[in-house]
Amino acid sequence: MITIHDVAKEAQTSIATVSRVINDLGGYSEATKEKVLKAVESLGYESNAIARSLIVNKTHTIGVVFPNISSMLTYEFLNGIENVAYQKGFSVIVSHTYSKPKRMMESLKNLIEKRVDGIIFASDAVEKEQLEYLKKKKTPVVFLSTKADEESFPYVKVDDYQAAFDVATYLVDKGHTKIGMVAGNPLDLISGVPRIKGFVEGLEQADLSIDNSQITYGADYSFENGRVQFGHLMTKNPQLTAVFLASDEMASGALTMAHEMGIQVPEEVSLIGYDNSLLSRITIPALTTLAQPLVGMGEKACDMLVQMVNKEGQVKSFIMDHHIIERKSVKKLI
Amino acid sequence: MITIHDVAKEAQTSIATVSRVINDLGGYSEATKEKVLKAVESLGYESNAIARSLIVNKTHTIGVVFPNISSMLTYEFLNGIENVAYQKGFSVIVSHTYSKPKRMMESLKNLIEKRVDGIIFASDAVEKEQLEYLKKKKTPVVFLSTKADEESFPYVKVDDYQAAFDVATYLVDKGHTKIGMVAGNPLDLISGVPRIKGFVEGLEQADLSIDNSQITYGADYSFENGRVQFGHLMTKNPQLTAVFLASDEMASGALTMAHEMGIQVPEEVSLIGYDNSLLSRITIPALTTLAQPLVGMGEKACDMLVQMVNKEGQVKSFIMDHHIIERKSVKKLI
Repeated sequence: MITIHDVAKEAQTSIATVSRVINDLGGYSEATKEKVLKAVESLGYESNAIARSLIVNKTHTIGVVFPNISSMLTYEFLNGIENVAYQKGFSVIVSHTYSKPKRMMESLKNLIEKRVDGIIFASDAVEKEQLEYLKKKKTPVVFLSTKADEESFPYVKVDDYQAAFDVATYLVDKGHTKIGMVAGNPLDLISGVPRIKGFVEGLEQADLSIDNSQITYGADYSFENGRVQFGHLMTKNPQLTAVFLASDEMASGALTMAHEMGIQVPEEVSLIGYDNSLLSRITIPALTTLAQPLVGMGEKACDMLVQMVNKEGQVKSFIMDHHIIERKSVKKLI
Repeated sequence: MITIHDVAKEAQTSIATVSRVINDLGGYSEATKEKVLKAVESLGYESNAIARSLIVNKTHTIGVVFPNISSMLTYEFLNGIENVAYQKGFSVIVSHTYSKPKRMMESLKNLIEKRVDGIIFASDAVEKEQLEYLKKKKTPVVFLSTKADEESFPYVKVDDYQAAFDVATYLVDKGHTKIGMVAGNPLDLISGVPRIKGFVEGLEQADLSIDNSQITYGADYSFENGRVQFGHLMTKNPQLTAVFLASDEMASGALTMAHEMGIQVPEEVSLIGYDNSLLSRITIPALTTLAQPLVGMGEKACDMLVQMVNKEGQVKSFIMDHHIIERKSVKKLI
C-alpha cells in the first residue's frame, strides 16, 4: 500500500508538507505543491480517509450498538440506518452487546477510540455508568427504540403506552371480553411496563378488568418465551378468546404452542402481536399486529444523528406514529 | 474532545514527539517522555485509534459487504463474523449493496479509503471490475458463501452440488418418487446451478428422472418467489409428493401457498428447505432442511481474514460440512 511516507520520499519533502498539500491548507510554494501532486499521481496514492480525519476531526463513520443480533428488529432498524448513512456519506460500524453491561461499555469505548462521529444506541436499557461515559465524551448520541432516564440524549420511539392501549381498544371493538396478555419483562421500564400499563388501562377504559392470572411474563421478547408463556396462560385461562403478545416473535411462538395444544387461531383464540417485523407476514395465519415503523425509525435516528454531527441546529426527541395492521390472526366476535 | 494538539501544547513539545511517546517509538529524552505522559493523564487524553493506525498502518477494522440486508442469512453470518472479530479485537463495518454493481463498487472503495485491514464479501456474485479493483488494492479478502471465478481469493462455502445431491437421496430414501424443485436463479452459477445440477443428478442416481416441468425458478431466494413458484409447480404437477426448495425463505413461502391451496404439509406434499435459517424452526410445521452452518461459516471467514491480516501463513479455501436436519415437513412414504 502506498503511504504518505512514500509520497514525501518521492517528492523529497516532509510528511507534514504532503499532508498540507493534500488537504489544501497553504503554507508551501507552488513548486512544492507541484512536486507533491506529481508524486501523488505517479505513485497512485489515494486520499487517505484516516489521515484526513485527523485533520478535519471527522471520520464520517457512525457506530450502532444493538443488544442482540438475533432479534428480528435489529436488521430492520439497521436497514433504515444504513439507507440514510449511505445517502449522507457515512459508514456504519455495528456492535452487539448481548445486553451485557461489560461488553456494552467495551463497545462504546471502542467506538469512541475509533473516533466515530456519533453513536446510535438501540433497543436496550442504558446503565448509569454508560450514560456518564457518553456525557463525558461529548460524542453525539441518539437512542433508538429506547431512552435514557434523563433528557440529555434525544430518542426515537413509538409511544409504547398508547400503542398497547390502542391494542386493547381494538380487541374490545372486535367483541372480545376475555382477554389475556403475554408481556415482556416487568422490570423493563422502557418497553415492558408501558405496554402492560397501557393494555390494562385500555381494557379498564372499556369497563373490562384483567387480573394477574391473565398476564404472563417473558424474560425477553423471544419466540421461545412466547411459546412457553402462551402455554402457561392458556392452561390457567382456557376461557380466553384473545391474547396480546408483546412482540411478533412471541406471537409466532404462541402460534406454534397453539398448534401443539390443538387450539385453532383465530377460530378459538385470536392473537395480536407487536412490531410488524418480517415475521408477522410469514406466519400462518399472518399476524395482526401493532406496527412500529421499524425502517423509518432507523432512518429517523440516523437523520437526527447526522444533524447533530453536522451541528445543524437543536435536535429533539421524536415519537413515531403507530397503527394496527389487520391480517388474519384476530376474529371478529360481533 | 481532547486532541493530540492539546497534549503537545500542555507538554510544551511538538505533536510528532507526543505521537512518538504515545506509540513508544523512542527518540526522545526521559524528561520529555514524562512531561508528555503527565499531560496525557492530566488532560484525560485517550489513545487515539486513528492516529495510531496511521503509524502502525492497521485500523483493526474489517469491512463486510452483504448483498441484501433483508435476507435471513445475513444476520447469522454477521453474528459469526462479529463473534470472532470481537475476540480478536477488530471492529466490523457493515455495508449492503442491494446487489447493485455501482453500489458494490462504492462500498468497496469506501472501505478501502477507510483503510480497513480486510474485507469479507458475502453471498453475492462478484463482477470482474470489482475483482480487478480488489486485486490491485492488495487488501486481504475472504469470500463467504460465494467465490470468485479464479483462485486469487480464499472462500468459505458448503459444497452446494453435493448438498443438493444429498437432499435428493434423502427424499428417495423416504420413499418419494414424484419429486419437484423450486430452484433459485438458473443464471446464478454459484448457488443456483450447482443446487439444480446436484439435485437432478441425485435423482438420476436413484433411477428417477425429473423433467423440466418439475422445476420452477425464482429470480432470488425470497419468501415471495417461493410462494409464487411453488404455486406454479403444484398447478402444473399435482401428482408431486415432495418438493425441494432452494432456501428456507422459499420453503416458508411454499408453506403459505400450500395453506392457500388447501394442500396439507407433510400429509399430501413433503417440503424440504435449504439453509437452516432461524425461519426453519419457526414455521408450522417446522422445516426439514439442508443445514449450512451459518454462524460457523461467518466465524471461519473472519478467522481466515484475521490470519491474512496478521500474515500468519497461507490461508486456504474451506468447504464446510453440511447435513440434513429432520423436523416435521417431510413424510415417510415407505
